Amino acid sequence: MNVGNNERKALELRSLIKSSGELELSLAEVAVPQPAAGEVVVRMEATPLNPSDLGLLFGPADMSSVKASGSPSRPVVTARIPEAAMKAMANRLDVSMPVGNEGAGVVVEAGASPAAQALLGKTVALIGGAMYAQYRCIAADQCLLLPEGATPADGASSFVNPLTALGMVDTMRREGHSALVHTAAASNLGQMLNRICMKDGIALVNIVRKQEQADLLKSMGAKYVCITSSPSFLQDLTEALVATGATIAFDATGGGKLAGQILGCMEAALGRKSKEYSRYGTNTLKQVYIYGGLDTGPTEFNRNFGFAWSMGGWLLFPYLQKIGPQAVQALKQRVAAELKTTFASHYAKEISLAEVLDPAMIARYSQRTTGEKYLINPARAG
Amino acid sequence: MNVGNNERKALELRSLIKSSGELELSLAEVAVPQPAAGEVVVRMEATPLNPSDLGLLFGPADMSSVKASGSPSRPVVTARIPEAAMKAMANRLDVSMPVGNEGAGVVVEAGASPAAQALLGKTVALIGGAMYAQYRCIAADQCLLLPEGATPADGASSFVNPLTALGMVDTMRREGHSALVHTAAASNLGQMLNRICMKDGIALVNIVRKQEQADLLKSMGAKYVCITSSPSFLQDLTEALVATGATIAFDATGGGKLAGQILGCMEAALGRKSKEYSRYGTNTLKQVYIYGGLDTGPTEFNRNFGFAWSMGGWLLFPYLQKIGPQAVQALKQRVAAELKTTFASHYAKEISLAEVLDPAMIARYSQRTTGEKYLINPARAG
Repeated sequence: MNVGNNERKALELRSLIKSSGELELSLAEVAVPQPAAGEVVVRMEATPLNPSDLGLLFGPADMSSVKASGSPSRPVVTARIPEAAMKAMANRLDVSMPVGNEGAGVVVEAGASPAAQALLGKTVALIGGAMYAQYRCIAADQCLLLPEGATPADGASSFVNPLTALGMVDTMRREGHSALVHTAAASNLGQMLNRICMKDGIALVNIVRKQEQADLLKSMGAKYVCITSSPSFLQDLTEALVATGATIAFDATGGGKLAGQILGCMEAALGRKSKEYSRYGTNTLKQVYIYGGLDTGPTEFNRNFGFAWSMGGWLLFPYLQKIGPQAVQALKQRVAAELKTTFASHYAKEISLAEVLDPAMIARYSQRTTGEKYLINPARAG
Repeated sequence: MNVGNNERKALELRSLIKSSGELELSLAEVAVPQPAAGEVVVRMEATPLNPSDLGLLFGPADMSSVKASGSPSRPVVTARIPEAAMKAMANRLDVSMPVGNEGAGVVVEAGASPAAQALLGKTVALIGGAMYAQYRCIAADQCLLLPEGATPADGASSFVNPLTALGMVDTMRREGHSALVHTAAASNLGQMLNRICMKDGIALVNIVRKQEQADLLKSMGAKYVCITSSPSFLQDLTEALVATGATIAFDATGGGKLAGQILGCMEAALGRKSKEYSRYGTNTLKQVYIYGGLDTGPTEFNRNFGFAWSMGGWLLFPYLQKIGPQAVQALKQRVAAELKTTFASHYAKEISLAEVLDPAMIARYSQRTTGEKYLINPARAG
């Protein structure tokens, strides 16, 4: 950005799905707006590659068809969208879309309002899309001022994971449950949820796929960890549900049998406490919220859990809208206060904007491996 | 019943699942209690064989193993319970259970309270289990006084189907939807729901399996009927959802892909109205309540309907508890007022208690064929 002249151009990552069925990722040179009175311009220095970002970035592209072109400083990546998936893309066809839900950086320009001026020179976290860019112009009240000493990398993931984890605990309380279940529990988000639950004294049943993930969580103090690949998984889960009384679960996998198995084990755990026969099952509502789709296959379940059950989608933004700005502000304050403890995120690697478009890098970060989260630093030279 | 002496015995149908894995249905000779102050004794004359009754009557028995024994006046029926299904029966093992959710008859004895005395000689409908019996002693306030001229057969199904159909419409309104979808829609319940919706001006999308069922509903004035066996089913359903704006469904089938297909078509219908791309789908909550299990197979769906969705169980009795006695009373008054019109039930055949235990009869009424509902008259000689 050349502050002060009329150019004011900077790079921004774009994802475009063409009617022809081709996905194209590129770095566009875009104008950086002059901030309005209540706005600030942030030099982005840290923005994570979250699963939700990957969804917008690549859409339903066939990842085996990824091809590089362009130049080293203006790389271009293309991939093929399977024809069956094109119908669902109708509303984004031929629209070049900016990407990146959240990030952090330093305020380098501010509008005239006192709120905007107060942020000048400060390190802030922000949310609102289009974060995979060198500069982002945004309303001052969408920025979270980071505590003294916190770097942009410390604050890069201040919203999506922290608010999702806090939102799960808050939903648990609002809907009258007293303990909860989480799947894909060794994820960055899962580790955060584990820290929140330990701090707040809430019983959490962690479900993971592998022994190593269980070991990791246990080393972090997790009490209940069940491993889906274990032959005793259903028994282990039932015992953990009897011990904790958890009747709400947040499932990141979506596909397969897991969501239904959780409901079935909850019902079995409740049935142990009730001696009376009811052909309709227990009266206690058993809830599973699906908030991700790590398993993109169909969801399947046997309804062996009576009639007091519910399975549904859960998304951060509609949830935040539902609880209202005051409640959201309280959650954000907690995130800022515990940024380097409860809400600390760890990254496997920091990469530049150009490296996001490097096929070798794509092959790594698109795998969403536990503990392999990538951080983009748009201020870094390609 | 020999009123006035100490015998006071009468027949009552019982279902017993033995630890050995055998189901036994029989007619037990049981004592009829002297009514307490607030109670009445009803001579049962009409009680329907609802799907929910069949569930308690036969449990998970292998219907191909049904065998008759006993005498013509005290028939006994046995059948085998598959071993895999025995675990879920743990709480009813070796307990001889009375059957029959609802019915109607004439009050032949009444306790001292004015409410009970007021019912003496009157024809009433009642709910509360153990209706497959010659006499039923019950609290007067659990009786619904039938209007002048109504027979026990007219009032036999005053509760389960009418309150379920009214409960669906009420749930639709309480949860902020304006039109609804119903599956297995040509059933007795479905026809009732169609009459309620026509009367109340609510758009109803009926889903049936076959052309004949569609013809039946259309002949009764149904506007939207979609046939699952049609190759254009998903398109037809989407069009009906666009036309009606229905975002809530009540599904009697449970198993298979139908519940998920309804959510998918709702999302497609909503997507037509929204031009903006959202990778998370539309923001409008799409709800499917599963209230039956005509298809006992697993429930399966592809999550091609965004994140604003919910699928869950729906049961009449917890629903009635949730809305409270005043709201329930209002529903019951409507049933009584429209007993011979909106809430009229039709039966294929009236049978005696002993005939319920006739294997040839069992083979017919256990099929739950549309329009083939059976009515028991316990006052009828075997």
